[in-house]
Amino acid sequence: MDHLSDGDIEINLKELSDWKRDEKFIMRRYHFPSFIDAMAFVNHVAGIAEQTNHHPFISIDYKVVTLKLTSWHAGGLTQLDFDEAKQFDRLYKT
Amino acid sequence: MDHLSDGDIEINLKELSDWKRDEKFIMRRYHFPSFIDAMAFVNHVAGIAEQTNHHPFISIDYKVVTLKLTSWHAGGLTQLDFDEAKQFDRLYKT
Repeated sequence: MDHLSDGDIEINLKELSDWKRDEKFIMRRYHFPSFIDAMAFVNHVAGIAEQTNHHPFISIDYKVVTLKLTSWHAGGLTQLDFDEAKQFDRLYKT
Repeated sequence: MDHLSDGDIEINLKELSDWKRDEKFIMRRYHFPSFIDAMAFVNHVAGIAEQTNHHPFISIDYKVVTLKLTSWHAGGLTQLDFDEAKQFDRLYKT
């Protein structure tokens, strides 16, 4: 899978208003009422990552979880990153 | 609880050879054979953090977990950070 052009990345980002681009990554912070809620979210994220074999960089700063996605094999962002970002956002809503 | 002096931090760090000081933090990277193993470790770390009500900054980069500890209430490193670091190391060994 080839990485996306800057134009395609911009189009994809318009659908993901809470995500920001950071060079070869897209990233988002998620806020939770407690550390336990944050960890529950991280465990669901890990399940999705294993299913798709596409693992985000995850950080947990007490009640704040940050996810960063890129496609190493493509040397940049691919559709896979944006599809997975949408999955994480749907998970967060529920 | 007051934060430790530089001298006391050095003494504590001698017992924790895999940890490095980074300003107000101590940090260590742990390597795992798989992402699932890394996540299992993180979940145990989270359990310890909840028990002690002292939460490290956690990051998960596929098979590598980084933990960073500091004591916000003391404005620096306290004995609590070093005691918890030892708990995480014991957990890693098992």
